[in-house]
Amino acid sequence: MNKQVGGAMFENAGDDEIGKEIHALARRLYPICRSITGDGVRETLAILAEHIALERHEVVTGTPLFDWTAPQEWIIRDAYIADASGRRVVDFRKHNLHVLNYSQPIRARMAFAELKRHIHTIPEQPELIPYRTSYYAENWGFCMAHNAFLAMEDGEYEVVIDAEHRDGSLTYGEYLHAGASEDTFLLSAHICHPSLANDNCSGLALLTLLARNLGRRATRYSYRFLFAPGTIGSLAWLSRNEERVPEIMHGLVVSCVGDGGGPTYKRSRRGSAFIDRAMAHVLEHFGGDATILDFSPYGYDERQFCSPGFNLPVGLFQRSAFGTFPEYHTSADNLDFIRPEHLAASYRIITDVIDIVEGDWRPVSTNPKGEPQLGRRGLYLALGGDKAGAQAAMAMLWVLNLADGDHSLLAMAERSGLRFADIAQAADLLRRHDLLRAAG
Amino acid sequence: MNKQVGGAMFENAGDDEIGKEIHALARRLYPICRSITGDGVRETLAILAEHIALERHEVVTGTPLFDWTAPQEWIIRDAYIADASGRRVVDFRKHNLHVLNYSQPIRARMAFAELKRHIHTIPEQPELIPYRTSYYAENWGFCMAHNAFLAMEDGEYEVVIDAEHRDGSLTYGEYLHAGASEDTFLLSAHICHPSLANDNCSGLALLTLLARNLGRRATRYSYRFLFAPGTIGSLAWLSRNEERVPEIMHGLVVSCVGDGGGPTYKRSRRGSAFIDRAMAHVLEHFGGDATILDFSPYGYDERQFCSPGFNLPVGLFQRSAFGTFPEYHTSADNLDFIRPEHLAASYRIITDVIDIVEGDWRPVSTNPKGEPQLGRRGLYLALGGDKAGAQAAMAMLWVLNLADGDHSLLAMAERSGLRFADIAQAADLLRRHDLLRAAG
Amino acid sequence: MNKQVGGAMFENAGDDEIGKEIHALARRLYPICRSITGDGVRETLAILAEHIALERHEVVTGTPLFDWTAPQEWIIRDAYIADASGRRVVDFRKHNLHVLNYSQPIRARMAFAELKRHIHTIPEQPELIPYRTSYYAENWGFCMAHNAFLAMEDGEYEVVIDAEHRDGSLTYGEYLHAGASEDTFLLSAHICHPSLANDNCSGLALLTLLARNLGRRATRYSYRFLFAPGTIGSLAWLSRNEERVPEIMHGLVVSCVGDGGGPTYKRSRRGSAFIDRAMAHVLEHFGGDATILDFSPYGYDERQFCSPGFNLPVGLFQRSAFGTFPEYHTSADNLDFIRPEHLAASYRIITDVIDIVEGDWRPVSTNPKGEPQLGRRGLYLALGGDKAGAQAAMAMLWVLNLADGDHSLLAMAERSGLRFADIAQAADLLRRHDLLRAAG
Repeated sequence: MNKQVGGAMFENAGDDEIGKEIHALARRLYPICRSITGDGVRETLAILAEHIALERHEVVTGTPLFDWTAPQEWIIRDAYIADASGRRVVDFRKHNLHVLNYSQPIRARMAFAELKRHIHTIPEQPELIPYRTSYYAENWGFCMAHNAFLAMEDGEYEVVIDAEHRDGSLTYGEYLHAGASEDTFLLSAHICHPSLANDNCSGLALLTLLARNLGRRATRYSYRFLFAPGTIGSLAWLSRNEERVPEIMHGLVVSCVGDGGGPTYKRSRRGSAFIDRAMAHVLEHFGGDATILDFSPYGYDERQFCSPGFNLPVGLFQRSAFGTFPEYHTSADNLDFIRPEHLAASYRIITDVIDIVEGDWRPVSTNPKGEPQLGRRGLYLALGGDKAGAQAAMAMLWVLNLADGDHSLLAMAERSGLRFADIAQAADLLRRHDLLRAAG
Repeated sequence: MNKQVGGAMFENAGDDEIGKEIHALARRLYPICRSITGDGVRETLAILAEHIALERHEVVTGTPLFDWTAPQEWIIRDAYIADASGRRVVDFRKHNLHVLNYSQPIRARMAFAELKRHIHTIPEQPELIPYRTSYYAENWGFCMAHNAFLAMEDGEYEVVIDAEHRDGSLTYGEYLHAGASEDTFLLSAHICHPSLANDNCSGLALLTLLARNLGRRATRYSYRFLFAPGTIGSLAWLSRNEERVPEIMHGLVVSCVGDGGGPTYKRSRRGSAFIDRAMAHVLEHFGGDATILDFSPYGYDERQFCSPGFNLPVGLFQRSAFGTFPEYHTSADNLDFIRPEHLAASYRIITDVIDIVEGDWRPVSTNPKGEPQLGRRGLYLALGGDKAGAQAAMAMLWVLNLADGDHSLLAMAERSGLRFADIAQAADLLRRHDLLRAAG
Repeated sequence: MNKQVGGAMFENAGDDEIGKEIHALARRLYPICRSITGDGVRETLAILAEHIALERHEVVTGTPLFDWTAPQEWIIRDAYIADASGRRVVDFRKHNLHVLNYSQPIRARMAFAELKRHIHTIPEQPELIPYRTSYYAENWGFCMAHNAFLAMEDGEYEVVIDAEHRDGSLTYGEYLHAGASEDTFLLSAHICHPSLANDNCSGLALLTLLARNLGRRATRYSYRFLFAPGTIGSLAWLSRNEERVPEIMHGLVVSCVGDGGGPTYKRSRRGSAFIDRAMAHVLEHFGGDATILDFSPYGYDERQFCSPGFNLPVGLFQRSAFGTFPEYHTSADNLDFIRPEHLAASYRIITDVIDIVEGDWRPVSTNPKGEPQLGRRGLYLALGGDKAGAQAAMAMLWVLNLADGDHSLLAMAERSGLRFADIAQAADLLRRHDLLRAAG
């Protein structure tokens, strides 16, 4: 039952190639001005739908979503600050971070002294435009580089935000890869951020191409992909799919997967769910500066999936953890900041976890008393010589020793310190020699 | 039910003031020559009774107290060693440590060679008088500075200990602050040591003034204060109050709380009782060199409370741990060794623990599915800006996330790493907005 | 019931003497050419039988042993490689490691080019003869020093292995010291290695003399000693004694106990069985570089005892761990490599563990409420003065405090950090004063 995926599942997705593919897709998503609602989200979903049979859902403004309500759509057409000469000193057309996301409209002339209370900068990073939002409090504003702000002179400015809030709908995308079972692995990426490459064009692109590749294979689990605006989008999905929630056996929120930091995994609220163990195992063998963080209720949509009424086994996977890298939520989070090789490595980590989810089973030895005689079956030699052979033999000994029906392959990998893939390969070989059967 | 105490309970007991008050009371207790029985204990209790409605209990000599018996009273009137010229080279009137506590009487002339077998000194601390006792073996003796001992010449001395053992009673004091429940927090300080300021005038004074201050407030728990001679006094209370023992939910033995070391907490025998967790939490956030020790069956009256037949959740709170500071059980443990600021800090640690005991409850979210929308309720802003605001928001997120009825506020504080007071404040705010209710 | 052994059990086995005795016995075993079957094993057992009433078991060739079959006997009479001049350049008579153990016979003249494919050396240790076997694959071969190999010239050689495989039986030895109970402590040493002093003449000799010494005492447990060829021998015992397997409460596989490394203990598969705890306790107090390893399914016969169908509480005791010392499986593992003082220390460690197994019991205090008054019974003084007295008093306090029927003496030793022997002595003293009784 676990053989459809295995170690060779993604053999066509060579690391170089997939990294370039993800980067290319992220590049197409980057320029779009997204928000929690509106056409930016729809335009993004349309691009993702070129790769997978994406379902688009519209949730009518005002629909109750647990304690929340589906918000109005935000239409942004233009935004600028022009000086007395008519020159645009801040121009939304040049960078969509320039406007406070979900800003109220304004069209006025005002003195700099008044205007500057609506301008956001980062004095410590004076060349970068910050990313700021005001979704649930009515406000208007601009974001700009601090140095440009310092260069503005007193006087009157023309201030225009040509935006509109109107009833419409909240939009999110969903893709289901149906497996043999309705037991589901949820993979979710937020779609609400505008031109921020790592956060989260990277996650959107990676999950889309993962969905495409998974779609080509038979799997044991079903895989549900969610591309939804942060917080309100996951709440929308949860409130409209409460009967599906118990099917979620594993889950990952995916964001910021294109930079060279980390990798970082934040555990689910449960702390030692299967996804937490599988992720820890993969990262332990990944090398580099992998970090595993305990759950905390601040972050991305794992906050909603791990709320006490759901308490789903959903963790957060990132490269650099949010808030810890200087490019975070600034105009420096651009297409140069994410790189194909990092995207490929992130992709590989997630597919390694999927391999574990797909490939795990609980073997029972058919010869539990003493070791079976491997030599007579040619198994000591079957796997070739020297070091690789010795390691393969160790993997077989571990599997046989722990094949009491209480240990899954992942538990064997954890206890032995060997890679899951090696344990799984040994178990497969032993089963083919009738030395193992599946438990109960 | 937890609101009577809260963070503001001791608002009138400013740290400076309470430290000075405790020191002043300890100063009055210091000169009295106490022992396990006798008028020294009664005189001490009379002074404590000026602050609280203390009950004095007398246990008649010979009363069986589990495996023990209430001892005779010890009366000490005078004690000295005089040389041939009649000069007192050791004089109880100058320091009550000079006489072996609970010493048998003697009135004799004897050669130095014989006398010196009854003289106790500390060669390594030659200027200090040691504190020695002989409660349960008949003996007589003197304690003195080693240098003074070395200055004694051979020859005959007049040796007088004008003491008496006679049937009477064992005395201890008790104060009960009745709370809403009969569930009880026991606080105990030994009263048997003579002129040793830290060990334990400090504990007696601190608990007395804590009892006074608690008496002014309504509390959820009842608080029982015990001022009794070490070992035999706690055994007396336990044997006479066996039906009350199951009411003890939390307890602290308090001694040596006036020096600048530690703080030190020795866990109860249970190891992870609520008092152990609460104390660990307070000390973790106290800063400095707080030390938490595992239980061991040597120390103060926690030995009796934690005996296997009771196994009460009673730990030991000290600043420097007994036996670890050079002043311990010597004449250097005097009024200069204890200081108001240390007493105030010790007082604050204990009241912080009481705040946890009083303030702990198990919240259940009224919106367990997803996060409730805090912004709509003004809760993100309610607590002010910047860092304090962010921390308050984090506390709210933690409380909401763990509000499944299984986590008490202390468990939330432990898991989040936030202070109990911040968690409790967040929980209170959320409850006022009907976002929480109490479990069960 | 635990008093037959106690701390003084081996009082006649002074460390120096026992170390010399073990070394002398190992010296007699060393020259014999053993294999998994054949007269080498019988000759070895005959020597062991001079010390203990050893039972010899013969398992007819072809007998099924779980997944295995009792192999044929191997008779080795001579083996050599002679050069053109007839000079023996490799000679089994000079060292029995020279022949591949269990080698097929050969009698041929062949070119060096062909011969050398059957010669095993260790280029990194060019003066040492390696130890190689080929039990379960038909093969012939020689082992020699790499330098001697390099000195061989091209040309034709006479190659003779005068060996024979024929039906007969597999041989192993067994000794049972019957105790008061059928609950059994299994001690096992492999007997199949030829002239390797540490691996495992040391283990065979140590266990034999331990068995002899145990035989002189009444014990609570029965002690079963097994001297059997690796893997197939323990499988033979297990398959022929399945009804006895549940009697095994504790067990140690013993090998490589004569060198100066370690000591090393590899836990049983259970990980925290009593034997694992007892061994950890003894090694913790042993000093030096004691190492405790988690179980792994590679090693000696613990592999069979800990197979999932048995999962016995059997660990592995060694000085240097197998495979970690340069002499391992080479001609350098000779009689100079093992030393009486190391053998004596290894013996002491095992007997300390036996003392714990024999001496452990669960006391219940007869005075559980408060401490009993030790002074009145002279117990504070009973154990002499100063440091030893203080430690003895601490041991008594710990025992009394934990004497709730849930803590065995080993648990008390673990929690207190005191030595088991001190705890046991305190418990004995307290029981003699009727302060303890045995639980249940």
